[in-house]
Amino acid sequence: MSKPLILVTNDDGVTAPGIKMLVEIAEELGEVVVVAPDSPQSGMGHAITLNTPLRIHKTRAFPDLQAYECSGTPVDCVKLARHVVTKDRKVDLCVSGINHGSNAAINIIYSGTMSAAMEASLEGIPSIGFSLLDYRYEADFAAARGHIKMIMEHVLKNGLSKGSLLNVNIPKLPTEEIKGIKICRQADARWQETFAEATDPRGQKYYWLTGSFVNDDPGTDTDVQALEEGYISIVPSHHDLTNYEALKHSSLKELED
Amino acid sequence: MSKPLILVTNDDGVTAPGIKMLVEIAEELGEVVVVAPDSPQSGMGHAITLNTPLRIHKTRAFPDLQAYECSGTPVDCVKLARHVVTKDRKVDLCVSGINHGSNAAINIIYSGTMSAAMEASLEGIPSIGFSLLDYRYEADFAAARGHIKMIMEHVLKNGLSKGSLLNVNIPKLPTEEIKGIKICRQADARWQETFAEATDPRGQKYYWLTGSFVNDDPGTDTDVQALEEGYISIVPSHHDLTNYEALKHSSLKELED
Repeated sequence: MSKPLILVTNDDGVTAPGIKMLVEIAEELGEVVVVAPDSPQSGMGHAITLNTPLRIHKTRAFPDLQAYECSGTPVDCVKLARHVVTKDRKVDLCVSGINHGSNAAINIIYSGTMSAAMEASLEGIPSIGFSLLDYRYEADFAAARGHIKMIMEHVLKNGLSKGSLLNVNIPKLPTEEIKGIKICRQADARWQETFAEATDPRGQKYYWLTGSFVNDDPGTDTDVQALEEGYISIVPSHHDLTNYEALKHSSLKELED
Repeated sequence: MSKPLILVTNDDGVTAPGIKMLVEIAEELGEVVVVAPDSPQSGMGHAITLNTPLRIHKTRAFPDLQAYECSGTPVDCVKLARHVVTKDRKVDLCVSGINHGSNAAINIIYSGTMSAAMEASLEGIPSIGFSLLDYRYEADFAAARGHIKMIMEHVLKNGLSKGSLLNVNIPKLPTEEIKGIKICRQADARWQETFAEATDPRGQKYYWLTGSFVNDDPGTDTDVQALEEGYISIVPSHHDLTNYEALKHSSLKELED
């Protein structure tokens, strides 16, 4: 039986430490193809490049692999991986990350890591985004190595339901303090934001986004709660943004007449 | 009673014809503030600007209004509108668009127009994204003028449930052929994509995204179906990407042990 084909991508760029760990684990499980941005792309959400051409070439970051760096966004990388690099082959799994920082709760919306994973799921590829709750460059991506491998093995074996992807977040803890895995819903947490206002060397005013994360969600079944308790959170996610509750109960129906 | 405060934004840029129509309608309903990108930002999804500062200044595009153009993405515009421009005031409604082109089905994920509307909904502002199924610069944005105003009036009067926003798409039809409004779910349609491959004047290969829209969704209750029948589609949407079906039935629960 041939080895499964695993696509690895991220949003922190092909030279980030997080993707290195993911590639190492993926190599133990199958044949690896890497297509990742040539520069950091945090906060790019589901952006795609429409008005400029894309460049892609072999990267020195993984000299022994079929590994490419791309001038576009994380979603562009997945599209190029699917339609150019792996063109006529079936991709068995896409893993994105390991992101430097949380993608729990509302962060999924802004995250290039998760958007790359979602794009793969749109292409029918079982797909997982991994994030570690540690923004530092020297974060310990190895602590959850065993858990990450177990999750990837599970998805390779069982697949995921159509259009589904997994949002996996890992607490900033040493291996022995990680309590296990919890399957959760996305917390209804939010960013309380402000803008730092300053003046540049040419005397022009500018603004820079800053903020703090606030969890108002009282639920005990959320990703944020699981992470606070020391668990790895997994939220099965999808691309259907319909608010079915609102669809059923909304006064909008009046507009149909 | 004071007039409602209406924030208008888009992703095609502050000089696009679509936003002009939306501003005209909004002015009939309340006090208008415009904060829109200073250049086209189609396909930016929920991207935010983290690594560079943002600039914002009064725009000549709407000389008689509190109107600003911003160097960032559509989501940046809404954040700046909320935290800098309208800082201590309550915004009663945010409208985004009118987008030049469809944001039905999966397009919502890639759309700067819809991401701007979603960002406003995250801030607790009732929010609507409008899109016309006509990519042309000279598209007829006036055909659905009456419907757009009716939808805005409905939301100003009734509000929306917490975290909800509306994805409104308008068929490319003259006024008398628009059949009415349908409240729908998001179609499970997708893009079948390819990359045009070419060589630049310096001999370097490049790729450019292209594709066609495919609707595999057999449902008669979808936005794509309503639009094909000549209706304006409204999908109540939200930011919770949890796949609750997968959460209930998934074999992932095995990983919890």
